[in-house]
Order: sequence, then C-alpha cells, then structure tokens
Amino acid sequence: MASRSKLVRVLFQTSVRLSTPLRSYCSAPGQHSIIFRPRRALLFVAGNDERKICKIPTLDADCVVMDCEDAVAPSKKDEARKTVTRMLDEVDFGRTECAVRINSVDSGLADDDLLAILQAKNLPSAIVLPKVESVEEMQTFAANLNTAVAEIEVNPTFDLFAILESAKGLMNLQPILQEIVSLSDMSPFRLAALAFGSEDFAADIGASRTSEATELLYARQMVVLAAKAFGLQAIDYASVDFKDTESLKRQAEEGARFGFTGKVAIHPLQVPIIQQAFSPSPERVVWARGLIQAFQQHQQEGKGVFMYEGRMIDKPILLQAQNMVQSEAVEK
Amino acid sequence: MASRSKLVRVLFQTSVRLSTPLRSYCSAPGQHSIIFRPRRALLFVAGNDERKICKIPTLDADCVVMDCEDAVAPSKKDEARKTVTRMLDEVDFGRTECAVRINSVDSGLADDDLLAILQAKNLPSAIVLPKVESVEEMQTFAANLNTAVAEIEVNPTFDLFAILESAKGLMNLQPILQEIVSLSDMSPFRLAALAFGSEDFAADIGASRTSEATELLYARQMVVLAAKAFGLQAIDYASVDFKDTESLKRQAEEGARFGFTGKVAIHPLQVPIIQQAFSPSPERVVWARGLIQAFQQHQQEGKGVFMYEGRMIDKPILLQAQNMVQSEAVEK
Amino acid sequence: MASRSKLVRVLFQTSVRLSTPLRSYCSAPGQHSIIFRPRRALLFVAGNDERKICKIPTLDADCVVMDCEDAVAPSKKDEARKTVTRMLDEVDFGRTECAVRINSVDSGLADDDLLAILQAKNLPSAIVLPKVESVEEMQTFAANLNTAVAEIEVNPTFDLFAILESAKGLMNLQPILQEIVSLSDMSPFRLAALAFGSEDFAADIGASRTSEATELLYARQMVVLAAKAFGLQAIDYASVDFKDTESLKRQAEEGARFGFTGKVAIHPLQVPIIQQAFSPSPERVVWARGLIQAFQQHQQEGKGVFMYEGRMIDKPILLQAQNMVQSEAVEK
Repeated sequence: MASRSKLVRVLFQTSVRLSTPLRSYCSAPGQHSIIFRPRRALLFVAGNDERKICKIPTLDADCVVMDCEDAVAPSKKDEARKTVTRMLDEVDFGRTECAVRINSVDSGLADDDLLAILQAKNLPSAIVLPKVESVEEMQTFAANLNTAVAEIEVNPTFDLFAILESAKGLMNLQPILQEIVSLSDMSPFRLAALAFGSEDFAADIGASRTSEATELLYARQMVVLAAKAFGLQAIDYASVDFKDTESLKRQAEEGARFGFTGKVAIHPLQVPIIQQAFSPSPERVVWARGLIQAFQQHQQEGKGVFMYEGRMIDKPILLQAQNMVQSEAVEK
Repeated sequence: MASRSKLVRVLFQTSVRLSTPLRSYCSAPGQHSIIFRPRRALLFVAGNDERKICKIPTLDADCVVMDCEDAVAPSKKDEARKTVTRMLDEVDFGRTECAVRINSVDSGLADDDLLAILQAKNLPSAIVLPKVESVEEMQTFAANLNTAVAEIEVNPTFDLFAILESAKGLMNLQPILQEIVSLSDMSPFRLAALAFGSEDFAADIGASRTSEATELLYARQMVVLAAKAFGLQAIDYASVDFKDTESLKRQAEEGARFGFTGKVAIHPLQVPIIQQAFSPSPERVVWARGLIQAFQQHQQEGKGVFMYEGRMIDKPILLQAQNMVQSEAVEK
Repeated sequence: MASRSKLVRVLFQTSVRLSTPLRSYCSAPGQHSIIFRPRRALLFVAGNDERKICKIPTLDADCVVMDCEDAVAPSKKDEARKTVTRMLDEVDFGRTECAVRINSVDSGLADDDLLAILQAKNLPSAIVLPKVESVEEMQTFAANLNTAVAEIEVNPTFDLFAILESAKGLMNLQPILQEIVSLSDMSPFRLAALAFGSEDFAADIGASRTSEATELLYARQMVVLAAKAFGLQAIDYASVDFKDTESLKRQAEEGARFGFTGKVAIHPLQVPIIQQAFSPSPERVVWARGLIQAFQQHQQEGKGVFMYEGRMIDKPILLQAQNMVQSEAVEK
C-alpha cells in the first residue's frame, strides 16, 4: 500500500508542478466582504444646469450624478466643469450622495474634468466613468486620477462606477475588472459599481430597444454576474420614457429580481418608483435582522457555519442580509 | 507565379511561427466521445437520514445523491459521514446509481468526508462537489482525493459532478474546466457533469427566484454550453416547491429543451415527472436506432460521413443518438 | 505637496511596470470603421443544383451562397465543386453577391474545395467557412487559402463568413476571433461576418428547437456581441419551415431587433421577407442621412464630437447611419 500511495502523491505533485497552473479570473477576496452604501436610484442631471442641481436636495434620491458627459454639449464642457465644482461646495445635498460623471478616457476630456472637480472643497464621493472598453484606458484613468490627486491637499478615495455601454466593453469585461482591482491598490479609488448603459449599447450593436428589453437580456445578466463575482453593486439601465411610470415600475422590479442593486434615473419622478422597487420587503428585513443576530450569537460561541430558518448560512448570504438592513435604514 | 507563391508561403509561415499562437479553450477531444449512463433525476437525500435512504431502492431514480453538505447541520456532519458509509454497504440500491455529495473544499470538511466514505466496501460511483468556484480548490480536491484513495486497497475512478452556484464559479468556469480535465489525467476521477445550483446562485447575485426563472436564463444556458463544449452532462436546478407538480413538469421540460440532460430532485414525487421529461420520445428513439444502424453499415463499407433522413451525420449527432437509445433502455 | 505627488506617481508607475499588464481581448481598431455591403438575406443553394443556381439572378437576393457542404451528399462533392466553379463564370448574378460555402476544415475536404473554386475566372467575393471551432483550424484554413491563391494569376481578397454551430465554437469564440484578425494580415481574406448555425448547434447541445428559440437566446446574443465587438456583420439562423412565412417574419424582425444584420434563407420565398425585416425604416434612413450630413459639416469646421437631434454622436453611431443609408440604396 504505502509505496503505491507514495507513488500516486509524487506523480500528482509532479503533474501539478509541471503544468503551468491556470489562474482563476476573479481573485478579489477582500472585495467580497464590502458593504456599500445603498444606491437604489442614481439620478443624473446635466452638470451645467444649476437650477436643476439646486433642486436635488428636495428629491430624496440615494445618489445624484452631476454629468459632464453626454448631457453636456461639447461647447458647454468647461461651463459644466465649473458649475459642478461650485455646486459641490455651495449646495447641501443632505442625505443624497454626490457623484460626478466625467467624460470618457477616449474623449480626451477626462483629464481636465478630474483636475477641475478636484478643486472643490467638498469632493464628490464617487466618480462615474462612461464608455469603459479596454484595460489600457483604465490605466490612463488611474494615472490621470493619481496626477490630479497629487495636486491637492487632501487624500481622498473615490468610489468608482464604471459604465459598460459597448460590445467591446462587455467583451473585455473580465480583463478590465481584473485590471481595475489591481490598479486600485496604488490609486485613490476603489471600484464600487458596474452600470449598464442601454442606449449607447443598443446603438453600438445595432439593436432596437423595446419595453421588454429582451434584446439586452444577455448583456444585462452578464453585467450582474460580473459585478457580483467581483463583489460590486450592479446598476441597471435608464428607462428613457419618464412619463410611462407603469413601464418604469415593471422594469425596475425586473432589474431588482435579476440582482441589480439600483437603476439610473433621468427625471425626479422616477426616483421614488425606483427606490421602492429596489427596497427589500418588510418580511425580508425581518429575516435579515434575525439572521444577523443569529450570526453574532454564533460568532460569540466560536462557531463558524450555522443554520438559520432551515438554511445553511455562509458569507454571501450574511452580506446580503447586512446590505438589506442598511437599505432599509436609508428608507426611513 | 512560382516566386510569389513561395513568398506568400514563407511570409505566412513566418507570421504563424513568430506570433505566440493562441490556444483554444476546450481541447478535450477524448471527452467528446464518452457515453455516460443516463442521469435524468438526481434525487438528493440527507446523509444522516437512514430511514429515507433505505426507501431509495423503491423509487426507481436514475441516481441518488446522499448528502453530507447543506442538508446536514454542522453538528451532524460526522453522523452523516458514518451513515452514508454504512448505507453504501448495507443497502441494495438496485438499478439506482449511488453518488455522495461531500462538503465544499472551502468548508474544510471535504477531506474528512472523502476519508470516511472511502472506507465503504461498495464505493459510490460518483462524487458531487458543491460550490465550485476556483482553479485552486480543484487542485486541493484532487490532492485530497489522491491521498484518500492511496489509503485503500482498491483503485477506483469516480465520476465527478461539479455544482456551480455562485457568480465567481460561473466567471471562472472556463479555467476551472480546463484545470479539472488536466487534473483528471493524474487523479482517480473524471469530470462527468456540471450541475447548476439555483438557490445559492440566486442568493449570491441577489436575484429573486420566479417560476419562469428568467433571472437564471444567462447562467443556466452558460452551464449547458460549457458542459457540452467539454462533452459533459448538464444537470438543471432543483424545483424547491415539490408540491407544485405542474410547475415542475413545465420546468423540467424546459430544461430538457435547453439541452440539460437531467435535473435535481429533492422529493421522491419529483422523480417520475423529471425522468419522463428527460426521456426521449418513442419517435426519437426510433430515429436514433435507425441512425446507429446506418452508421454501423457505413462503417463496414469504409465510408466516413453519411446522410441519414436528409441530414449529414457527424460525431455529435451520432453520440446524441447513442445516448438516446441508452436512456430509453433504462426507462424499461 | 510636491514630494507626495512625486511619490504617488513613482509608486503608481512602478506598480504598472511590475505587474504583467493584462491585454484587452478585442483590439481590432481598424475593423470598427469598415462599411460592409448589405447582406440582409444570404440565400443558400446546393452547389450541384445547376437549375436552382441559374434562377438566382431573378430572386433579388443580396447574397447567394453556393454550398459545397451540408446540402451536398458526400458522393456529390466533386460534382458540386465543378458546378460551382462553372456557374461563377457562366451566370450573370446581377446585383447579387456570390459566396461559396466550402466544407469544414475538420472534414478534410476544404483544401480541395478551395483549389477547385479558385479556378473560376469570376471569383466569389466571399468564402463561407462552416463548423468553426478552434484556433488551430483557422490556421489550417489560412494556410490552405494562401496555397490555393498562390496557384492563380490574380491576387484576390475574400470576405470570410465564419459559421458558429457548436458549443466548442462558442466557447472558443474570443481566441478564434483574435486569431482570425491576426491571420488576416498575412492572408487573402478579411473576416466580415459571423453566422449562427442553429440546427447543428441545437443538435450539438442536445436542445430542442422551438419557434420562440428561447433555447438559443444566450448563443445568439453572444454571437451578436462578439461580431459587433470586432466590427463584423452578424447573420442569424435559418428558419427551416419555409412555408410558415408568419413565423419567418416574426423571427427575422426579432433578429433585426437583436442587432443581427442579416439572416440565412433556404428558399427563394424567404428572401423578400428577410430583406424587408432587415431594411431600415424610411424614418431611420432620413435620420441617418441627416446625421451623415451633419457629420460632414462638422468635419469641415474641424470639430470632433457633435450633437444631432439631442444625442451625442460618436463613431459607432455614425457607422450605423452609414450602413443604414447603404442598405436603403440597395433596396431600390
């Protein structure tokens, strides 16, 4: 027996040693334990529209995105940068988180956007980067952000929301995500969310948008899968017909069922509908609170895995419960 | 002419030689010609539930999976291991194949599961490994199994069913499969099936389960595609509401239409409904028998490709026919 | 300030230098600016059916594919090669583009197909390669085509349509596409289109075909995504029941909505229905003409990005408009 046993082990170890071992794609173990603040509705507003930005505090949105990109005509880019920077300092956004969408790396405008916005005393907590398509542009973005941050007194860390809105971006999603995670170690940002940009994506692949969005099913579910594999939030597409609140409700509820954690809003009327759809039900919150309590008790008793309401509880489910309780706290 | 021709060839060959050639992902040619035994219903039963295990032989299931993982509370793991090992030797399972689900590599319990179960005189024919997520854990599993097998007299080869039930597992599916195939050469297992674990997957990505399962469409079809690319069986998710036989029938028939070869059952009542849904129709069996006969005839005449009922017949279709005839034989 | 700034930059650059940089998958920038001729209906006809081939000029199809593969029995291969070669020279196909489907690399027949067809004075403008599954067979195809072209007087470049019709082919899609793009540089072809072969694919994964084609959704949308990421046309599956024109219309319109640019036809009756479904609406053509005009005006004024009907216009949208106008021109 002993000799066969030894032989098998030696052969096995040799085989493992000789073959170049494959690496798993997503190896961001730390990421999986992050609890992000709830971002159910991300309300976009043109960066040069001061009147609309000043109304934001009354809208009870989880997050506002002041836009320097597609909502701003090329001739207004500089005006937008200045307005956004001033608004960050002048407006009290209350419980609403402030994010800024800069222009894409490819546009050549992102660098100036970053330099301008980092002049604000109240820095935005998140940066939204559109049209993410390649590993190389993520390297450029990280370099630009490092340079811009080096010019200011404070030492911020931004949450990054990457918008995927092209075939190329989705095709490159895995290497892009690995690169971002690796760049994060040396840069003042951490990747927090993937957002799916439906209109640009549909134009890029030549698809026609429908209310059911079957044409986007593959792409949307790919974005959810990748986001969750890397421990990120997943933001669903903007429903552009803001008067059709019935469709919005249906689309938002579907997004929540698919695993998205939030959705882009392009009009204040959409905010409450979206936030309702992405809020956990009261029963789920009760379930989540009970689970967290059971977890804490088992921790004190030094036990690892445990059962809760007939189910084996592991890390992902605990994290889901913690996120649920936090969403609910915001709702109040 | 001659000189241009030569030049083109030299340039072409140089270009091929100089560039590091890309490799195709799935290169398991042998796998594609394997005919597996039919596994339409995989009936799961808690490993420590002796009463239920003893009833298995009366249920006419293709395969029973005695579970040491999620159906067994942490405090009962050792009891489950001992019961499973004893049941393997004491119960005559008749035509039903015996498989054992061990705990995940990540749990730290898989090693003891393997050591215990391999003490049985009647070894299970298949091992079910849950929560497969990374290349590294497959290396650990292979090492553990090699060690456990080295301790016993016989020299078994197990069929391995890998359960995919997380975003990370699906994101890493391709490298995981390549690694398993490469590890198989030096280890006492061959990968036979991929199973999709819907409940854990939905919890992991934060999706809400519906009866239509649109929220799982991308993941399920990815699992079918990967399984078939590597010549494996594909096992669809457990329908948890076992009293709703109408939904089960519909879900099982959809799974079969999608290309799954079987489905998890969690209650004896589900077995006949699932096995019916994954059985070929009498017309298809007649078609398959005729095709196999035509193939054998063409083989004798030394011909390769051939036409059958207006269709060019190649290897995958022949294999499909062979599997169909085998399923039907089991049905009797 | 300065020292911290410098430190961050040095650290950042070191980190980037030290880690092996990931590469993006699709890096075919040139491809993205190609305008292909419209190929809405690709009408397949058996290469040995002279009578049917002679009728092609009356059918107003965008593209005819004379088939040496599945439509031709093994014993008729040589007859098909000779007929196709003769038809290329004898028939005036008018506005209809001529393509030839050769046998798969794996069949061992592709080499002889190429040598025969390249004897025609009027070479086909496109070659259709079926059952594309691996990087290695693309290398063989390129080598064979280089050899065959070296034998003739002229110096053609063929558009290549690659048919994906197996699990393995889809699993390997990304490395296959990268390899084809890289081989194109030294070979007399450029990849122009990906086509999805539904019947062989369904047989390969063991799926049952339905009229709604949900069983193919993942695979079809993967093909569209990959095609568009590499700047290619995407050709949807053949609807085999050619008498059911209602289903065909519905299926063709869905394909167009998904982003496919054309569809395989297997019967002359299908051609007008398909070409209608893949033609842009009059309103879209007006939109596209306006956009192109606006673009040309902005070009003259030296401006880059610009707004058109409330939307920021970038390269992919411009290209879409150019393709639309060209489709419409053909329609007349």
